[in-house]
Amino acid sequence: MRDAAATSALAKPAATILDSTRLIAIDWGTTSARAYALDAAGEVLARRSATLGVQYVANGDFAGALATLTEGLSGAAPMLACGMIGSRQGWVEVPYEGCPARFEEIATGVVAVPGTRLSIVPGLLHRDDAGIADVMRGEETQIVGTVLDDAPQLVVLPGTHCKWALVRKRTIVAFSTFMTGELFAVLREHSILGRLMTAGDDAGALARGVAWSLRENAALTHDLFSARTLPLTGALAQSAAADYLSGLLLGAEIVAARRWIAQHAAADAAVTLVGDAALCERYAVALHLANLDARIGATTASARGLWQIALHAGLVHS
Amino acid sequence: MRDAAATSALAKPAATILDSTRLIAIDWGTTSARAYALDAAGEVLARRSATLGVQYVANGDFAGALATLTEGLSGAAPMLACGMIGSRQGWVEVPYEGCPARFEEIATGVVAVPGTRLSIVPGLLHRDDAGIADVMRGEETQIVGTVLDDAPQLVVLPGTHCKWALVRKRTIVAFSTFMTGELFAVLREHSILGRLMTAGDDAGALARGVAWSLRENAALTHDLFSARTLPLTGALAQSAAADYLSGLLLGAEIVAARRWIAQHAAADAAVTLVGDAALCERYAVALHLANLDARIGATTASARGLWQIALHAGLVHS
Repeated sequence: MRDAAATSALAKPAATILDSTRLIAIDWGTTSARAYALDAAGEVLARRSATLGVQYVANGDFAGALATLTEGLSGAAPMLACGMIGSRQGWVEVPYEGCPARFEEIATGVVAVPGTRLSIVPGLLHRDDAGIADVMRGEETQIVGTVLDDAPQLVVLPGTHCKWALVRKRTIVAFSTFMTGELFAVLREHSILGRLMTAGDDAGALARGVAWSLRENAALTHDLFSARTLPLTGALAQSAAADYLSGLLLGAEIVAARRWIAQHAAADAAVTLVGDAALCERYAVALHLANLDARIGATTASARGLWQIALHAGLVHS
Repeated sequence: MRDAAATSALAKPAATILDSTRLIAIDWGTTSARAYALDAAGEVLARRSATLGVQYVANGDFAGALATLTEGLSGAAPMLACGMIGSRQGWVEVPYEGCPARFEEIATGVVAVPGTRLSIVPGLLHRDDAGIADVMRGEETQIVGTVLDDAPQLVVLPGTHCKWALVRKRTIVAFSTFMTGELFAVLREHSILGRLMTAGDDAGALARGVAWSLRENAALTHDLFSARTLPLTGALAQSAAADYLSGLLLGAEIVAARRWIAQHAAADAAVTLVGDAALCERYAVALHLANLDARIGATTASARGLWQIALHAGLVHS
């Protein structure tokens, strides 16, 4: 499945797309929903997105939202969705699968929505050594779509809640969530740190924040205050404060993630970043400062993963 | 100066209060302003408070705000204020004094507001070993009003931005800010963690959160997510989630503060909490879990401190 295929496929007549479509793959999250028409090889024929995320679906009318999202895309092909659509706030609550989770096992947890052609992929639940749960919905599918061989891999999925997942032999062994994205958003929009912040893109300030959090005695709840005092004392341009804050939070995540990697004896695993391109680039820069080199994965990881899971679930056949 | 004096003094006729007043002491912060009429012994004769904090003073009319705040309290006595009124956003920007700061030295930085009977106490600026500035405005005065002898003391001032200050021989040697209060507020009000939170007062959940952050491999940006997953998986009552989150943040602060204490070889210093009574009590519980026992100081620390600084500055005489 190559991205280039999507663009050329879109040039085909709609009827051709409908005829060739074997699966409607849907990445249905909290804020947005993205649908992909996939052909018999799992290639993207057409794509559609809408701000019909779970939190924007009025009165629980998920059927109506699905119809809007897939209008013109959907012939008789089965549909498979991942993400928050399977959460308690979604259409049908799909129980979490446990970890370690083999890619094939994830498919066994797929649940059909009664009266529709839609099925939903389960999220994953992982318990750490102390028994505290961590959860994901949607990222498991991106991971399945990213890891194509048996080599150990760390898949990092930046976003509101960044996930670090360890994959060995096409099995999600463990994962850990970091609230870095949401912390940045609430601090920037609602705290004193954001009050004077202007938009900027200052790689030096990002690196400075990362480095400060990487030092031995870093203490985030204290260090955050430097995003106020450095501009206050003229030691950082106000326009650089947002990148510096982002760096502080990223650095704190990386310190904790490195410890998590060591706990899982996963220092040998290659690191792949999956998600929004600009955010992945930012993570790659920060990781490099911590001597972790990462490659950036394909942006169609959800569609790829849904295709793989649909194959395992017998919804489509290769 | 005893709190009890205030209540009895208020029963005196207003004219008597005016006659006896030697200083109007004002704790003038970001959101609120509190004024105290102090007699020749520094005792509180009357008090007044108003939501006339710096951010609520319209059109820079600080003179009008001062008149409103002190109406009926103010005869010919001098006035001394501390807090954000001396910041860039306040009436007159009073330069920070450096650290270490002897209590008497703070008085040398007092600045008179032209055309008024009001003077303003300087804030303090402390640079850590890396040269990064930390700042306070108002807390230096509370510290002066709290520490009455030469013994080493750690004064902890919980609030939006909690300050830990090390005092030796009536000198503020160093201090460090933790954004714990603001982090709690923005996460509770604006993040996914607060979405389902209900008001509660669950000492067990507070302790659980503190303990979790005190463990060796604590990682705040990850651990915060447990304030979501524990209720999600039925491992914590939703009504206990706010206290658990508060505990996580408090624990993270204490871990960092203990390291800061060790860096300053201050393990022998007694700990005194100063501020809002309920918040101090919460901190005392959390500190006790970390084997730090704290006493709770007087709530009139600002008025006491302003009196001491006024004496040093020659605004009043004992």
